[in-house]
Amino acid sequence: MFFGPACIPCIVKQASAASLRFAADDEALQYKIIRETCSALSLADDSITAPGFSVILQDILVKNTGVPDPYYYVKRRNLQNAQNYIPLLREIIRNSSDELETAVRAAIIGNAIDLSANPGFDIASEISRMNEDSITLPSYKRFREEVADARLILYIGDNFEEALFDKLLIEALHPRRVAFAVRSAPVTNDITFRDAVEINLPDLCEVVESGSRIAGTYIGQCSAQFMDLYENADIVIAKGQGNYESMINETRPVYFLFRVKCDVIAARSGFGKGMGVMILNQSDK
Amino acid sequence: MFFGPACIPCIVKQASAASLRFAADDEALQYKIIRETCSALSLADDSITAPGFSVILQDILVKNTGVPDPYYYVKRRNLQNAQNYIPLLREIIRNSSDELETAVRAAIIGNAIDLSANPGFDIASEISRMNEDSITLPSYKRFREEVADARLILYIGDNFEEALFDKLLIEALHPRRVAFAVRSAPVTNDITFRDAVEINLPDLCEVVESGSRIAGTYIGQCSAQFMDLYENADIVIAKGQGNYESMINETRPVYFLFRVKCDVIAARSGFGKGMGVMILNQSDK
Repeated sequence: MFFGPACIPCIVKQASAASLRFAADDEALQYKIIRETCSALSLADDSITAPGFSVILQDILVKNTGVPDPYYYVKRRNLQNAQNYIPLLREIIRNSSDELETAVRAAIIGNAIDLSANPGFDIASEISRMNEDSITLPSYKRFREEVADARLILYIGDNFEEALFDKLLIEALHPRRVAFAVRSAPVTNDITFRDAVEINLPDLCEVVESGSRIAGTYIGQCSAQFMDLYENADIVIAKGQGNYESMINETRPVYFLFRVKCDVIAARSGFGKGMGVMILNQSDK
Repeated sequence: MFFGPACIPCIVKQASAASLRFAADDEALQYKIIRETCSALSLADDSITAPGFSVILQDILVKNTGVPDPYYYVKRRNLQNAQNYIPLLREIIRNSSDELETAVRAAIIGNAIDLSANPGFDIASEISRMNEDSITLPSYKRFREEVADARLILYIGDNFEEALFDKLLIEALHPRRVAFAVRSAPVTNDITFRDAVEINLPDLCEVVESGSRIAGTYIGQCSAQFMDLYENADIVIAKGQGNYESMINETRPVYFLFRVKCDVIAARSGFGKGMGVMILNQSDK
């Protein structure tokens, strides 16, 4: 079992935070959302992952608020905030001795934006620490070598706002062909096709829906279009802890770029909570 | 509703901590304990208080561990630790200009020992801050005046280890007649009759079971013996947040001595989280 017992209180806390966010003036509705989450958790199979549960929580929020994409406006507020930092980051990348490595670091910083597991994020503070040991890249050397020869790169996205930072890395990956995978339905603040269009991602690279509705990627649920890219890409990059949690047992090499956001994943990955990492599922353990 | 929606994630977290404490080597049992708690929470009435839920969680722990008093050994380890500080506190009280006030402060410090809501307590650090603004006693003046005329004082206990600190205040209340109420069954680390005997409390004052099994005091469930004391005492002192949560709507004056341990009670009491307080339910709001 990968989804540990400690994930359950964390998910109830997320449900409580969401109930306050989307039903602030209705305590009875807050109770209902949290209670329905508790009920679903009491019945969930042990083999479920935390990202796998995200779609259950999303359904509870949608049903109780009557809003099909509860995080729609929150995502856009965060995006506005994130946008302020992109010119500075592009400048830092341009002036660095290894633009690719700096772009990888910038992309990992974007993963700090997470309304579920890291609601108190602070982008400015993240940028000030981007060259410190708070980000570790044990797979970077191999990644750089593989990028040199790559023709097709599949980049599996995570949060909407984070995709602004992903664009910096995608720019650094050009002129290779890059396909960017988004979720197939709104779930927390994860990026959807509609979101990708809004930030002009299709002008930079191909954008495909993965077929996955969870806050991560269940390969077994993915579309034929996605699977074709997944199987034929020279490099797969998967952003965010949710993709790590749901894809860690995959056999093909995947570069995971994420911030370690909880004790369960710290124990599983071997990196401390708060660390930003670039690790391969295959060779880095 | 007094037990707010935010109590639910807190209770699941307590269940998770208890499952790790009492089923450390058995992940399947940890899941079972946390899931049964979630199930009970999904069904609990909105009018339940967090202390009211404590007995449900206790029953889940007892059933799954097969141990009638799971906290028995934990309480005794904490007691040993607490004992080291009692001579120093007695000295501080003896050398103070107002021994009663200092004893009240010592009793409040004891309330920091709480395995449910404050598992990371540090007694030495509490003592070093006992005369600072981290403890506020808006009812102390009235309390001191009432103590002068009191013949019978009912002192409703809370945690086992905390009772060592309560003894210091009971000593300061002598020669008035003091009756000390304990829980009628083990629940978390709260004090029972057996515990009271172990720390020689019957040598210092009367000890009675309240009739309450929760980590607090439901007056409606209390024994005739307790109710006789409750109705006839000149002063009632109730220790701990659990007693505050379960007795705040009582009409007779009750002096609540406790550490504010969560945001819900901070909002309800008007005192910041982490503050030690002595407040009356009647006149201090």
